Amino acid sequence: MIIGKVVGTVVASRKEEELVGLKFLAVAPIDLATGEVKPGGVVAADAVGAGVGEVVLYASGSSARQTTVTQNRPVDATIMAIVDTFEVGGEVLYQK
Amino acid sequence: MIIGKVVGTVVASRKEEELVGLKFLAVAPIDLATGEVKPGGVVAADAVGAGVGEVVLYASGSSARQTTVTQNRPVDATIMAIVDTFEVGGEVLYQK
Amino acid sequence: MIIGKVVGTVVASRKEEELVGLKFLAVAPIDLATGEVKPGGVVAADAVGAGVGEVVLYASGSSARQTTVTQNRPVDATIMAIVDTFEVGGEVLYQK
Amino acid sequence: MIIGKVVGTVVASRKEEELVGLKFLAVAPIDLATGEVKPGGVVAADAVGAGVGEVVLYASGSSARQTTVTQNRPVDATIMAIVDTFEVGGEVLYQK
Amino acid sequence: MIIGKVVGTVVASRKEEELVGLKFLAVAPIDLATGEVKPGGVVAADAVGAGVGEVVLYASGSSARQTTVTQNRPVDATIMAIVDTFEVGGEVLYQK
Repeated sequence: MIIGKVVGTVVASRKEEELVGLKFLAVAPIDLATGEVKPGGVVAADAVGAGVGEVVLYASGSSARQTTVTQNRPVDATIMAIVDTFEVGGEVLYQK
Repeated sequence: MIIGKVVGTVVASRKEEELVGLKFLAVAPIDLATGEVKPGGVVAADAVGAGVGEVVLYASGSSARQTTVTQNRPVDATIMAIVDTFEVGGEVLYQK
Repeated sequence: MIIGKVVGTVVASRKEEELVGLKFLAVAPIDLATGEVKPGGVVAADAVGAGVGEVVLYASGSSARQTTVTQNRPVDATIMAIVDTFEVGGEVLYQK
Repeated sequence: MIIGKVVGTVVASRKEEELVGLKFLAVAPIDLATGEVKPGGVVAADAVGAGVGEVVLYASGSSARQTTVTQNRPVDATIMAIVDTFEVGGEVLYQK
Repeated sequence: MIIGKVVGTVVASRKEEELVGLKFLAVAPIDLATGEVKPGGVVAADAVGAGVGEVVLYASGSSARQTTVTQNRPVDATIMAIVDTFEVGGEVLYQK
């Protein structure tokens, strides 16, 4: 999984039927060495009630379809967890 | 999923049988931080009636085969939604 | 899928049994913005009778195993179509 | 698989139910040519009792769900082995 | 698949049970345009008896689990073939 920060929201009224009811969030990856947001990012379905500004873990590929919320739905990235804290090199880089 | 802009079309008369009837569009990724088109991109099957110039969400990998239109077909990228609006960092970067 | 140009051939006599009989071609990706060949590339199985010099579409991942020719075979990239024409930004970048 | 070094830990109390009980570690990739840690990295589930500072092998994608510990769980990266030694170009780059 | 050169070996005594008995090799990708080894690379399971110094084809993702040797095992990269020769742009870049 990737640690990322929820940086925005995406609204799409015309979409594949199986996506109806899912919330889509823009997530930018966080550099594991510095804790800073990096360029790039994905639009992920939300399986845990995440909100803008939160630090999350998201999974990609077929694993994104293994949650209760996303099962059998055509998503390739899903927010799986809201991070409380992460520590790299003995230093706390993020604490909620 | 990735937010991208439909920038072109691809026509191929000689192809794997299971692809017959699908529409293929060239999609360039959009930078989540700026809303601008980035280099690179893919050719995606269209599951929602998208057209050139529209901003869309596309899914990659096995998830691309989970729509009504693409089920059991050998595609690895599918346009899943037409974006109405996306907002990053509290700013509306795109509005249809 | 990715648009690429078939740039070469690969011969391997010692290989996993399930690959016997497949033709393997070296494919370099084409830049969607310019129509030029980019660095990088993959070795793809051929499902449509493509030849060196042709512009093709190839799929990656599990989708590469969804064609008649590649079903249940351990390939992760397959040429799915021979491109007749592609147009980006209102300009024809390639015509066979 | 990728050789990486476990550089940190991630704690998330609010998460997809199927992730409960898994340990998540931050893993930075190691350059195969030099044996040094590279930028980037992932958060992987731990299937072998790895700890911070250890050099490990992790698998990504659907393969990450093929271990006893991660089966049917929505993870896309799993630590599969603790490396004893690796040798590149005739030189031992790492020995536990 | 990717053409690569086997550049090293990896030994791991503590590992996921389903990996026992597999041989793991470090493989660096080869630039299709020049035939030279590029930075980066993966650790792949060996399905064909490859050795250090050989040029090989490896597959990634779920396809890596489709060989006799790797079936139902949690590997995401497998060496599928030993390359005899590859030719790009009409030039033989490698011959065994």
